[in-house]
Amino acid sequence: MGINLSNFLSSKSNNTRMIDFQDLDHIDGLSISVLSANLYKNNRDDLSMFYFRDGANYASVYTQSNIVSENIKWNLAQNSKKIFSLLVNTRNANAFTGSQGYESLKKLADIISKELTEKQKQDEDRPQKISPKDILFGCTGTIGEKFPYDQVASQIPNLVNKVRYTQNKFIWMKAALGIMTTDTKPKLAMEECKIGNKNVKIYGIAKGSGMIYPNMATTLAYVFTDATLSNEILKKLLKKNIYNTFNAISCDGDTSTNDMASIFATNKVQNPQIKNINDNKIKKFDSALNNVLLNLAKRVVADGEGASKFISVNVARCKSEEEAKKIAFSIANSPLVKTAIAGEDPNWGRVIMAIGKANVKINIKKLNIKLGKIKIIDNGKLHSSYNEEVAAQYMKGENIEINIEIYTGLKNFTAYTMDLTKKYIEINADYRS
Amino acid sequence: MGINLSNFLSSKSNNTRMIDFQDLDHIDGLSISVLSANLYKNNRDDLSMFYFRDGANYASVYTQSNIVSENIKWNLAQNSKKIFSLLVNTRNANAFTGSQGYESLKKLADIISKELTEKQKQDEDRPQKISPKDILFGCTGTIGEKFPYDQVASQIPNLVNKVRYTQNKFIWMKAALGIMTTDTKPKLAMEECKIGNKNVKIYGIAKGSGMIYPNMATTLAYVFTDATLSNEILKKLLKKNIYNTFNAISCDGDTSTNDMASIFATNKVQNPQIKNINDNKIKKFDSALNNVLLNLAKRVVADGEGASKFISVNVARCKSEEEAKKIAFSIANSPLVKTAIAGEDPNWGRVIMAIGKANVKINIKKLNIKLGKIKIIDNGKLHSSYNEEVAAQYMKGENIEINIEIYTGLKNFTAYTMDLTKKYIEINADYRS
Repeated sequence: MGINLSNFLSSKSNNTRMIDFQDLDHIDGLSISVLSANLYKNNRDDLSMFYFRDGANYASVYTQSNIVSENIKWNLAQNSKKIFSLLVNTRNANAFTGSQGYESLKKLADIISKELTEKQKQDEDRPQKISPKDILFGCTGTIGEKFPYDQVASQIPNLVNKVRYTQNKFIWMKAALGIMTTDTKPKLAMEECKIGNKNVKIYGIAKGSGMIYPNMATTLAYVFTDATLSNEILKKLLKKNIYNTFNAISCDGDTSTNDMASIFATNKVQNPQIKNINDNKIKKFDSALNNVLLNLAKRVVADGEGASKFISVNVARCKSEEEAKKIAFSIANSPLVKTAIAGEDPNWGRVIMAIGKANVKINIKKLNIKLGKIKIIDNGKLHSSYNEEVAAQYMKGENIEINIEIYTGLKNFTAYTMDLTKKYIEINADYRS
Repeated sequence: MGINLSNFLSSKSNNTRMIDFQDLDHIDGLSISVLSANLYKNNRDDLSMFYFRDGANYASVYTQSNIVSENIKWNLAQNSKKIFSLLVNTRNANAFTGSQGYESLKKLADIISKELTEKQKQDEDRPQKISPKDILFGCTGTIGEKFPYDQVASQIPNLVNKVRYTQNKFIWMKAALGIMTTDTKPKLAMEECKIGNKNVKIYGIAKGSGMIYPNMATTLAYVFTDATLSNEILKKLLKKNIYNTFNAISCDGDTSTNDMASIFATNKVQNPQIKNINDNKIKKFDSALNNVLLNLAKRVVADGEGASKFISVNVARCKSEEEAKKIAFSIANSPLVKTAIAGEDPNWGRVIMAIGKANVKINIKKLNIKLGKIKIIDNGKLHSSYNEEVAAQYMKGENIEINIEIYTGLKNFTAYTMDLTKKYIEINADYRS
C-alpha cells in the first residue's frame, strides 16, 4: 500500500502552477471546521463543515447509480443560487435509510442554517439569513444503517464554534483526513492560475476508494476556488473536466450510491466575468481545474483497496472518444488483466482479449500495443524485437502504462486503475471475520 | 475446488430423462477418437476427433469478441450442409497466430478430409467424398503462440485409425477429459426424450472456465444427438437455449477469443420431421436440450478458477428479460458481491449497490431481496424479522441463491457465477512465477 505518486505532481501545462503542501494557503470566503462526532466510536474525525460566509456559487455531479443515498436526494432537490455550507460525514452512507435518513438531513439543514444565521449576526456587517436549502450534504460509509442523527446534530454548535476565516495547511490536511473512510492516505491537490490578470486558487480534497459497505468507501471530491464564476460556468467546467478525470478511473468497476464531486467558488477574486467556457480568459483555469481533478482521481486509484500498481490505459486513434473509452475500460475493468499485472506478468494475450470484448470494431492488422515504451504488437503482429524478459522487468515497476493504438480515427481516452491483488480480496471478503 | 453439484443432476421437467454416467450409450452415426499429440509435453490427451460417418446436420454459436481465433474464422467461412468431422485441440488457442494459424487449419482440413474419404471407402457401402469444408475446428489454449501444425498433422492418421462406431461411457469420459485445459473436472450432461414416439439421445460435453492465456481457458460446448433435425431447426434451438444457459454464466466477466458451442444431429432416428420450433412434437427435445446446456454451463461455473461457492442470481418480475439480465449480471459480475460471498458475508448492501449501477430504472419501494429463502429487503425496507446471524449461517453453504424481485413487470432472468477468492488471484496472477 505505497504506490509512489511523485510523478503525478507535475502539472501538465505551463499555464498553471502546482502548489506544494507547504505553501497551502486559505481560500478567501471559506471556513473549514472538522471534529469527531464519535461515529466510529474511536474519536477519529468524522464530521467536516465547509462554510462560505458570503455564500458560494457551485456545481455538483453525482453517482449514476439508480439507487442513490438520501443526501444525494436532498442535494438534488435543493435549487439554491448560492450554497452557504457543505456538511460531510463519514461512517454512515445515509443510503437505504428511507425517511429516517431524509428527515434527519432536513432537521440538520434547519439547525445548520439557524446556527449559521446567528453566526452571521455576530460576524458580518451585513448579516444574511441562511435557508436550509443553502446547505448540501456529503455522506459516505455503511449502507442501510440508521443515520446517526443525534450524534451529528449535537455537534453542529461545536462545528460552528470552530469557524475561523482562514485555513492553513493543517486545516486542509485535517479536512482531507476528516472525509476519509478506509482510505490509507489523505488526498489533496492544489493549483494556482490566472483569470485575466487576477491570480486565483483551486484547492481540492477527495476520498476513495473501494466502493461500498462494509468498507465504507465512496468517491467524494470537493474543489474550492476564490474565483468569481457563475453556477452555469462552474457546471460546464465541472462536467467537462470530470469526463477525463473522475470518470476515467476504475477501482473495481463497482459504483457507489453516494459518489459526489462538487466545485464551490467564493467569488472573492474580482476576475473578469466569464460568460462562455470557450472564452480564452478561462483556458488556464480550465486546465488547472483538470490538473486538480486528475491529481485527485489518480490518488483515489493509487490508494485503491489492495493496490500495488498504478495502471494507465491509453487508447489512441479511435473513431470516437466513446469507442476509445469503451476499449480503455474493457481493459481497466478486466480481472484477468488486473491479476496479471498484480503478478508482474506481461500478459499481452489478456490485453488482446479485453480489446476484443469491448464491443468496438477494430482492424487487427493496424493494432499496436506497447507496455510503456516496449513494443509488443506492431500492425497486428508480435513485434520482431519483443523480448519477454525486458517486458517482465518493466512489470516490476509501480506505474504500468498500457498503450494501445487502434488507427480507426483520431480520438483518445486514458483510463486509470490499479491491479487486483489478494489484498483486495482480503479487505473485501474477510473484513468482518 | 469441490463444489457439490448433485443438485444440478435433476431434470427440470418430467418430459425428459436425465441419463446417469453409468448408462451412457453411443450416439449412432458418431465416432470419437482421443489421443495425445503431446502438445503439453506430458502425454496428456489433447486432440479429440468427432467423426460423423454419414455427416451431421449442425449449428454453432461463437464468441462475441471482436477478436476471434483462426479456427473460428475458418468455421465461419465454411458453409457446408453437413459436417463430417470436428477436431478439437487444447493447449494452443490458434488466436493471434495470423496466416500461419489459418493456413495450418486449411492444410489439416485437407488431410482430415482425405483420410476420412479413404476411411469411407473401406467402411461404407456407399462411400462419400468428404471435402475440407466439411471439417470444423475447436481450439483452446494459449493465445499468440505459433500453432503446432506438425504435431497435430502427424496424429491425424492415428485419430482416423482409432475410429470405432460405438461409444461407451469411457470414450465419453475420455472426450470430456480430452478437451479440458485448466479445468479440474470433466463436464458431461446427458438426456433422453421423445420426438413424436421416437426416443432420441442428447449428450453433451464442455470445458471452462477462466477465460484466457496463460490459463488456457475458453468455453467449449459440444452437444450430439441422434435425432433427425435440419440445420435451420438446430440453429434456432441452439440460439434459443444458449440464451439462458451458456449466455447466463459469468466467471470473471472476461470473454475468450475462442468460445464455441455447437450441436450436431446424426439423423439416425427417424423421428417426425420438424419444420418449426414451436411444433409441439419438439417441445420435449427443446426442454431436454436446455437441461443439457444448463447442466454443462453450471458445471463450467462450478469449476471456475478458484471457485468455492456456486451463486445463482435470480432477478424476477422485470419489465423485460433484457432488464432482468442487466441486473442479474451487474450482481454476478460485481467483484464486491463476489468477494463478500467468498468471505461468507451476507452483505446485502453490495447487492443493492450492484442493482443500482445496472442502469435499469427501478422502484425502490417495491424491491424485494432474499438470500435463499431469508427475507432481507421487503418492499424497499429491511425486513422486520431479518437476523444477520441466520443469514451468515446460510452463507456458509456451497450454493448461494440471491433472489431479487423488481416488480416492474413479469420477466425473469437467472445468472450463474462463482465467488471471487484469493485462489482466483493466485491462479491468475502467480501462474508463471
